Amino acid sequence: MAPILADNSKPNLPERDTYGNNGLVLVKNPHLDLMSEDFLYHFDLGTKTHDLPSMFGDVKFVCVGGSANRMRAFALFIHKELGLGADSNNITDICAGTDRYSMYKAGSVLSISHGMGIPSISIMLHELIKLLHHAKCRDVVIMRIGTSGGIGIEPGTVVVTDVAVDAFFRPQFEQIILDKVVVRNTELHQGLANDIVQCSKEIPGFSTIIGHTMCTYDFYEGQGRLDGALCSFSKEEKFEYLRKAYDAGVRNIEMESSVFAAMCHLCGLKAAVVCVTLLDRLEGDQINQSHSVLLEYQKRPQQLIAKFIKKQLDIQT
Amino acid sequence: MAPILADNSKPNLPERDTYGNNGLVLVKNPHLDLMSEDFLYHFDLGTKTHDLPSMFGDVKFVCVGGSANRMRAFALFIHKELGLGADSNNITDICAGTDRYSMYKAGSVLSISHGMGIPSISIMLHELIKLLHHAKCRDVVIMRIGTSGGIGIEPGTVVVTDVAVDAFFRPQFEQIILDKVVVRNTELHQGLANDIVQCSKEIPGFSTIIGHTMCTYDFYEGQGRLDGALCSFSKEEKFEYLRKAYDAGVRNIEMESSVFAAMCHLCGLKAAVVCVTLLDRLEGDQINQSHSVLLEYQKRPQQLIAKFIKKQLDIQT
Repeated sequence: MAPILADNSKPNLPERDTYGNNGLVLVKNPHLDLMSEDFLYHFDLGTKTHDLPSMFGDVKFVCVGGSANRMRAFALFIHKELGLGADSNNITDICAGTDRYSMYKAGSVLSISHGMGIPSISIMLHELIKLLHHAKCRDVVIMRIGTSGGIGIEPGTVVVTDVAVDAFFRPQFEQIILDKVVVRNTELHQGLANDIVQCSKEIPGFSTIIGHTMCTYDFYEGQGRLDGALCSFSKEEKFEYLRKAYDAGVRNIEMESSVFAAMCHLCGLKAAVVCVTLLDRLEGDQINQSHSVLLEYQKRPQQLIAKFIKKQLDIQT
Repeated sequence: MAPILADNSKPNLPERDTYGNNGLVLVKNPHLDLMSEDFLYHFDLGTKTHDLPSMFGDVKFVCVGGSANRMRAFALFIHKELGLGADSNNITDICAGTDRYSMYKAGSVLSISHGMGIPSISIMLHELIKLLHHAKCRDVVIMRIGTSGGIGIEPGTVVVTDVAVDAFFRPQFEQIILDKVVVRNTELHQGLANDIVQCSKEIPGFSTIIGHTMCTYDFYEGQGRLDGALCSFSKEEKFEYLRKAYDAGVRNIEMESSVFAAMCHLCGLKAAVVCVTLLDRLEGDQINQSHSVLLEYQKRPQQLIAKFIKKQLDIQT
């Protein structure tokens, strides 16, 4: 199963449960120290213009998801769940100076949107990891709470990823660096995944499973959809591909997990991917459930992660 | 220069200046006809819930760009430029039901945001092309007006792309379809590019050139930046790579042009990529010009395209 992973040996985390650098994020760029200022362009935040340690130094949990509205809703929800007072008026977009990403803070929880696809989340992660580094945050856990298409499981099921695989079901992420392709490990933190699944047992109403997540560069042709503007394959070929994915252990498909897993792994960040499935791709391609059903589905990863964070902080429900 | 292009022969457009299908967009998916409804999930628009021909049938120009704010600003600007009246209150987000993309209409001009990166613009393009198909639009011209990093040219220069190249300077886009890799042509429409450059001669204050645009999957490691959270190469290796890119004809780098060129080419859409450069990558990596300078730069592609559209519509300035 394990391919040759060029960057695999680098983090060197004993059992991946402790952190190399005294709990600090491992920024792996010797050039950063030589810069007099670091401006995080897509956040509109900088080391000279903002006091990042005082703004973010207490962050322990970072939750990320595609949609800005959803991540704002999550910030308001977790603010309430953590008992941080009735006044949520101070939950404003920290990245208001740009519309590339939105960022909200509720206590020690940071909630950030990342847009859709590997390139979009990758820009956000580079700047987030530098932000956590500049702010000297320690022992940070990062969780992607998103939406996905399921394979062979009931819509509304929450999938906690053990490993992200590519369109060929390989547990790896290919990063182009200058004119070379570097292969990176896409395992998520198994202990964290287990802890999250454990929390799910206390929430009735939906099921949570552990499985492989396939991460693609495309929503239509790249996920075997028959309803895009372009489609050159038959229904039978689509189903053959999805069945192969299922047999390889894939339970859901989305578009960000592989680079998320790879970058967090390299930087010593304990990371999880927790996505609800909006449909079963063995049943269809269109997402045409009612708005209210989809909204309820999208809240499930939020509920689950809120439960997990409260447990970690020893807050009783 | 020309690689083996699996999909190259499909559009079969005589000189690529006329349209195959009577000016209609070429949707290349036989399954679409079998669907009783097509719900464009990421636009929150559907064939059963919306009268797409009456909403969009008159569209002749589609302008797309990464930022929602910028595409709203462009819609307001073009509304004024086209003399559509003082009241721009009806310029509201047509995709208000979702925060994935924003869409505005001003006369025959549609202005849509696409987020950052190939996967994000690709989802938008699939749904846009289906929208134009369902709405029976004819003779549509589509233009990406964006931002980019320049190589060896003055910041603020506008680059009109002749061909999008990948990180290895190849004029192609690799699309994964099920478990196969299909190579697609990334040439843009040369006549359209020339017409746009011709318009630029009437606008003083900045220069516009034609050049290759490199399209990458990543902003930091993938574009040879020394200021990401991860960087494993030296300053010298970075400059060697960028110099090679320059020698291959690359004048700017962004993250969407290759799939944009490939999909528009396949679907018979006359397409252009018009991006301003925010910095010269041979001088640095950080985008730290003043806010007002960056804002002025970002307006340049808008001014240029407004001029082009007005010429096409025979509207005097």
